[in-house]
Amino acid sequence: MEEKNKSDKSTPINAERRKFLNTAAFVGLAGAGLSVGLSSCKKTEEAAKPVSAAGNAPATTMASEFGKYEVPPGKLDDYYMFSSGGHSGDVRIYGLPSGRTLKQIPVFNMDCMVGWGITNESKAIIGTKPDGSVKYNTGDTHHVHGSYVDGTYDGKYMWTNDKIHGRIARIRMDTMECDKITELPNIQGFHGIFTDKRDPVDQSINHTTRVFCGSEFHIPHPNDGRDLNDPSKYGCLFTCVDSETMEVRWQCKVDGNMDLTATSYDGKLACSNQYNTENGVHYEDMMAAERDACVFFNIARIEAAVKAGKTYTIGDSKVPVVDGTSAANQDPKTSLTCYVPVPKNPHGVNISPDGKYYACSGKLSPTATLIEHSLVLKWFDGELKTARDAVVAEPEIGLGPLHTGFDGRGNAYTTLFLDSQIVKWNLDAAIKSFKGDKSAKPVVDRIDVTYQPGHGFTSMGETKEADGKFFISDNKFSKDRFLPVGPLHPESAQLIDISGDKMKLVADHTTYSEPHDAIVVRRDRVKTRQVYNLDDFPLATKDAKDCRVERKGNKVTVHLTSQAPTIGLREFTVKRGDEVTIILTNLDKVEDLTHGFAVPKYNINFIVNPQETKSVTFKADKPGVYWCYCSHFCHALHLEMRSRMLVEA
Amino acid sequence: MEEKNKSDKSTPINAERRKFLNTAAFVGLAGAGLSVGLSSCKKTEEAAKPVSAAGNAPATTMASEFGKYEVPPGKLDDYYMFSSGGHSGDVRIYGLPSGRTLKQIPVFNMDCMVGWGITNESKAIIGTKPDGSVKYNTGDTHHVHGSYVDGTYDGKYMWTNDKIHGRIARIRMDTMECDKITELPNIQGFHGIFTDKRDPVDQSINHTTRVFCGSEFHIPHPNDGRDLNDPSKYGCLFTCVDSETMEVRWQCKVDGNMDLTATSYDGKLACSNQYNTENGVHYEDMMAAERDACVFFNIARIEAAVKAGKTYTIGDSKVPVVDGTSAANQDPKTSLTCYVPVPKNPHGVNISPDGKYYACSGKLSPTATLIEHSLVLKWFDGELKTARDAVVAEPEIGLGPLHTGFDGRGNAYTTLFLDSQIVKWNLDAAIKSFKGDKSAKPVVDRIDVTYQPGHGFTSMGETKEADGKFFISDNKFSKDRFLPVGPLHPESAQLIDISGDKMKLVADHTTYSEPHDAIVVRRDRVKTRQVYNLDDFPLATKDAKDCRVERKGNKVTVHLTSQAPTIGLREFTVKRGDEVTIILTNLDKVEDLTHGFAVPKYNINFIVNPQETKSVTFKADKPGVYWCYCSHFCHALHLEMRSRMLVEA
Repeated sequence: MEEKNKSDKSTPINAERRKFLNTAAFVGLAGAGLSVGLSSCKKTEEAAKPVSAAGNAPATTMASEFGKYEVPPGKLDDYYMFSSGGHSGDVRIYGLPSGRTLKQIPVFNMDCMVGWGITNESKAIIGTKPDGSVKYNTGDTHHVHGSYVDGTYDGKYMWTNDKIHGRIARIRMDTMECDKITELPNIQGFHGIFTDKRDPVDQSINHTTRVFCGSEFHIPHPNDGRDLNDPSKYGCLFTCVDSETMEVRWQCKVDGNMDLTATSYDGKLACSNQYNTENGVHYEDMMAAERDACVFFNIARIEAAVKAGKTYTIGDSKVPVVDGTSAANQDPKTSLTCYVPVPKNPHGVNISPDGKYYACSGKLSPTATLIEHSLVLKWFDGELKTARDAVVAEPEIGLGPLHTGFDGRGNAYTTLFLDSQIVKWNLDAAIKSFKGDKSAKPVVDRIDVTYQPGHGFTSMGETKEADGKFFISDNKFSKDRFLPVGPLHPESAQLIDISGDKMKLVADHTTYSEPHDAIVVRRDRVKTRQVYNLDDFPLATKDAKDCRVERKGNKVTVHLTSQAPTIGLREFTVKRGDEVTIILTNLDKVEDLTHGFAVPKYNINFIVNPQETKSVTFKADKPGVYWCYCSHFCHALHLEMRSRMLVEA
Repeated sequence: MEEKNKSDKSTPINAERRKFLNTAAFVGLAGAGLSVGLSSCKKTEEAAKPVSAAGNAPATTMASEFGKYEVPPGKLDDYYMFSSGGHSGDVRIYGLPSGRTLKQIPVFNMDCMVGWGITNESKAIIGTKPDGSVKYNTGDTHHVHGSYVDGTYDGKYMWTNDKIHGRIARIRMDTMECDKITELPNIQGFHGIFTDKRDPVDQSINHTTRVFCGSEFHIPHPNDGRDLNDPSKYGCLFTCVDSETMEVRWQCKVDGNMDLTATSYDGKLACSNQYNTENGVHYEDMMAAERDACVFFNIARIEAAVKAGKTYTIGDSKVPVVDGTSAANQDPKTSLTCYVPVPKNPHGVNISPDGKYYACSGKLSPTATLIEHSLVLKWFDGELKTARDAVVAEPEIGLGPLHTGFDGRGNAYTTLFLDSQIVKWNLDAAIKSFKGDKSAKPVVDRIDVTYQPGHGFTSMGETKEADGKFFISDNKFSKDRFLPVGPLHPESAQLIDISGDKMKLVADHTTYSEPHDAIVVRRDRVKTRQVYNLDDFPLATKDAKDCRVERKGNKVTVHLTSQAPTIGLREFTVKRGDEVTIILTNLDKVEDLTHGFAVPKYNINFIVNPQETKSVTFKADKPGVYWCYCSHFCHALHLEMRSRMLVEA
């Protein structure tokens, strides 16, 4: 076993490997000649070694036990992994442990395979400009989180965010399709997202009713050209969205930039780790302070303030905004927010499955900060001297700590971006050590990953049912680990078995760029529909005999069915200049019998799944014969499954 | 081993399994009440069993030898698989045997991850409307084929086709990016594509210089509204594209619809299997004749005719067209084309690695037709009585034969769509049997696949270096084989070891819908670049100090660099109404250090790989502060890597 799996935390990290790693991680720090460094970092010297072109690290091999993690033909995976696609704008479904890609769910991106961004139904979800074209077809999905009941997934919905345009999207988990997108007002850089798990006041509502959204970039309020270059007037908002209506309930103004979001199991608190509490607009200003914060939101108090009308609005938005800045919240007993100081530019905050602790990573500090939930509540009750007193541990775990997963057995697993490692540390030992117990050793194990991990997460780790079986390391660089495919490399998602005392790297899975986060869900938590219900579609043509062309002036509606291997009308005629709407119903009832519908030269293609109905509208601006064909292989006579659109000149 | 692996071809196919399979394959034939059947089909009765809802077939397991086909962490795959994405519009790169997705190359689709369809450079390749927007952002890639030297891949280019809009795209194999797209004139349903391998006249040119394109749908010539409903005036063209310039050299009019394309190793012939030689426009007419054809093109003669000016043009197109219809080519000695009759609606034609035979599958006939290359040449010399005499074998192999791969050891492997099997048959035995040798048994082995295979292909099987190691079965239905993800199922690509006497199913890989075809290329045939050359980009900003804003009237050009963790300008100011062009150069030189550039609310996102330059142009129509951010994780301070675009009202 050549892969280094260090159990002795005092062992210095292999210097040669570090040099290789640093070509990516440190190139800016070293190369840009900037005087920024790592706070409290004992390893700065080694880290700042000069940059050299990346060589090819020797491939490592493991000799043991892979068969155990394989999923042979005919066997099903144990877990679903729902993963954000990053600036691909989609959400992916992978099977674990196989790493098989089961689906790419288009959300903010255009997907010409399913017709997302092309059909009238998908355009209505994405939103259109006055001319009917799609408003945005780029997006940047950073996190995916599911709806909860009793502290675990109920398999009903997932939500994901778009960082570019500040939108939140909901995905139905029965069909695995996006059904709603909401653009949040007056924010930019929507980064963190998390569902609530319980109502803060009515504890009998033990399921998700809200989704919380952190925004990263501070901007003028409103952002209409005023205060362009006066950052003192910029602001950041934390947003609460109703999980059912997808409407924005309220927003809360905060100091600093928000990054990730976490929520408590009792529903009382949501929080976000913060960098740039300096409110800088330049790079070095964002790193000036030695400490930033993790900001906690007292949901019950905020909603009481909203109810009491202690709110204002920004620009055209009607969403009530409360003031959660420090300046406006000096008394803990009435404060809407609690800013817990944590070291320098933290990245990531995650709650432990027992609901007791939040782990907030250091990024530019080699530490993780453990904050106790009950102590934050105490602070809000005025029973804690300072917010910093809610910190119960701050173990030194390694360079560039970003995200933490939990195993449900009292251990945390944190990605170390700069060290390219996963570090396993024990919560109780960290707390003891923080209290001064020198015999307590928080770090339990380390494992090298390849290379530069961003997010990391455990199976069921964001629920009370964390099962401690797998950890996934989503690595930002794959470099030499896969066959070369040109300048753009795949990302790597490494599968680590965490069921034993020592972590074991068991598979290197590739992913298309660039997943940021994921949840790993036990398969029994997910119940899907394989066939649609015809009655769910008011536009459905329920019998092939009802296929027809209807004309009102120059608006023509073509009602079609598809049933392998025929399209309901063999041909249909329209006139040049007509506005044509094609409504297509798939009458096939057999699972997996999807049809497609492509219109040459008209830039139209979409699929209809069994018993589904979809429509497209376009202007018939090109005369001639256009063979509309089934674009999704369906039948032995798939190629013969066509209809002619005749456009008269 | 529960998976059935039948060696005795006379064994009836498991009736229960057939019933399950047929719910998809036969639903139309049985359900639509049409009087169409399978020609010469001994199994029609069984096949036409009534449709029932698909149940869940029991998962099968294999107990043996999977470890051998796994690629453990740190090990590289042996093969690249370049696969068409179907109506996803892209081309995918998978590693084999692992099945890892290494890249998705955007081609005809929009890809907001890399900025394909967004950047000025990609828009110029795709083509734009007069208003500057992309002309088409849908596509349907059916086949991928590489450039050849000495009968094998030279690793320089790949080509893929778009069936929806009739386009051919070229992909550079050093960067794995599309560099050119050409729209073919006067065709519809561009289905088959294949590169030539040698010049037909100058045999010293032993590499690819042409790409041949078959078109499937017959349309009026020109298709401008004339002859709308007079199919007798419709026509189909076979197109030759120059592999370097990507310009259309010539087109050849044929009878019938063309499907797949194949080319000979000596460069003398290209061919296409044909269905609907009836020139029907309705489903049942397309299946009226008992025999269709495989049409062969005599390239030297066609090019001589073009040179001699024996051509015409269609509509606005300047491309010379020759007449290759039967009516115009009655004398074999001068004929441009040779129509070899093959049974009913064949699907697929492939040439054997020794260059001797073309295997043309039956689809609606349970046979494969073997055509001898030298005999077709003889026909063109007037030395063969009829074109049908070029057929040297027609073994009965099973129901719904579609595509054939070869192992280089004299065996062919054909996908059987209706039987959901791969059948291995021996060429020599098939030829002997056709000659009347009753002791010759063409079918050697069968293996069940799950379910309904479309394309199938072997490792290096389209070259003289066919190595007989793996066969991939791209199946159109996965049904119960993977965790359910709603109505749209993943496709399955099953990996079969063909190195021994018996085929062995060794892995079920998933693919996002809907790959049609692929080539499996030995990894040493591919040499990629990992970092771009700055000098290849005339617009490059070569030093961060040269970052600047240039204004000419209301046209503003912003010259930017990215170098982790900074963007060359911390802020830049434009005015509302300006036409802004951002040109971004990635100055980082480290492999895998890609940056992204996202502009909130402006629908802009694209990546720049190391040493690459790209640009976008947009109208600054929204005043305010817009934090342009790096959207591709690059560095510990990735989140801080931003620039402010200030748009003055």
